[in-house]
Amino acid sequence: MIRLSIIGSGNVAQHLVQAFSKSTEIELVQVFARKPETVSHLVPNQKIISDFSELKAVDLTIISVTDNAIASVSNQLVFENHLVAHTSGSISIDALDSKNRKGVFYPLQTFSKSKEIDFRTIPICIEAQQDADFQLLVNVAKAISNSVNSVGSNQRKALHVAAVFVSNFTNHMYQIGSEICKANSLPFDILKPLIQETANKILTLPPTEAQTGPAKRNDTQTINTHLNFLTDENQKEIYKMLTKSIIDNGKKL
Amino acid sequence: MIRLSIIGSGNVAQHLVQAFSKSTEIELVQVFARKPETVSHLVPNQKIISDFSELKAVDLTIISVTDNAIASVSNQLVFENHLVAHTSGSISIDALDSKNRKGVFYPLQTFSKSKEIDFRTIPICIEAQQDADFQLLVNVAKAISNSVNSVGSNQRKALHVAAVFVSNFTNHMYQIGSEICKANSLPFDILKPLIQETANKILTLPPTEAQTGPAKRNDTQTINTHLNFLTDENQKEIYKMLTKSIIDNGKKL
Repeated sequence: MIRLSIIGSGNVAQHLVQAFSKSTEIELVQVFARKPETVSHLVPNQKIISDFSELKAVDLTIISVTDNAIASVSNQLVFENHLVAHTSGSISIDALDSKNRKGVFYPLQTFSKSKEIDFRTIPICIEAQQDADFQLLVNVAKAISNSVNSVGSNQRKALHVAAVFVSNFTNHMYQIGSEICKANSLPFDILKPLIQETANKILTLPPTEAQTGPAKRNDTQTINTHLNFLTDENQKEIYKMLTKSIIDNGKKL
Repeated sequence: MIRLSIIGSGNVAQHLVQAFSKSTEIELVQVFARKPETVSHLVPNQKIISDFSELKAVDLTIISVTDNAIASVSNQLVFENHLVAHTSGSISIDALDSKNRKGVFYPLQTFSKSKEIDFRTIPICIEAQQDADFQLLVNVAKAISNSVNSVGSNQRKALHVAAVFVSNFTNHMYQIGSEICKANSLPFDILKPLIQETANKILTLPPTEAQTGPAKRNDTQTINTHLNFLTDENQKEIYKMLTKSIIDNGKKL
């Protein structure tokens, strides 16, 4: 049984609390939350603390707070020489205070409070400075996920940037699609099978092969029809830039 | 039994041929293909023609060719006063020659030759100028799909533009994500669960609520870290523009 505690009560922290609570290989010892009510529906009250002095030294302390707070939280821990890991995609392992042994436990996924998620499919990206710590993080990750990956700090930064493109920016494309539907009295639902298939396609085809549409065909007539149709200047600029990028990409192949 | 023929042998035409071949309510009478070998694996040879003079008048003739060729193909038909529909998202119903009755049968989906697809989930967008023709197109659509929609020419154009955003541009985001992975010795596979979940989220959440990431949080520190990380000028410009668009969008809400 691995004993671990979680510091934080945001989206990632809450999903981790839920996942670890279900695992038979993990004992969730404490959850640190400034506002205990944010996690009181997930763990028994006696496990919730909001004072750093109450935090016990355990096998692994996971700091799952906003990027800016990681360094100062790691600095406020009252114990030393224990394994402490953060969950951020963009923060180096070095940001953690050196009085404890350092690690990273980064789940590569988009979390919304209101949406449940199957943790077993989520890639966990692991980093540590000592072999035994790395192995412990692997065991913790395996307890909740089928996809455990060794990813260094620089690779993790790359992955985080890539994640912004494939998830945050993609969702913004959905947002623009829904705005265009709304402005033309069309239900957004009509686009959903297309959205699903676009995501499914790249499970079997590389994105360059999956690419379709007027930009891919360099179909300037349709592109101009679309640009004339769009009245929102921001949408028009995004359309132009991404069309040019797809056309330029085609030339490189 | 509705008798119909298809003119064309591209992606959409091939998927339609496959879908109609399986339907018990449709008789696929002829397929016009300039290069018969492109469809010979899908229909018996005696049904494949490549001379317009051989084309029989049937209940519905579907023209599924490139946008630029729709008008001239409809003009070359040897019969008159029959229902003829095109399958394009961006071409008006008026582009069809007036010697026949006009319709549109637009399947809103991304088709790749090498990927099979379940037609029953694909929204079919229908337009016609006469009630009886509209009803026939509805019946044809219902024979292969569970989602049949009445969509006028201007709405269809809007839908096509929206489809470019949610599908073509989204796939380009996947492409950039895969490039970043490749440049950093990471397998693209590690991003796939994130891509799937991003697409699944909007089945239950509106895109504005599903939005996450540094731009949504206006987290300038992470945004700058990402911009410093990106060395490809094109990727950097896209990152800047879409980040600004998400931030501006947040201000509007």
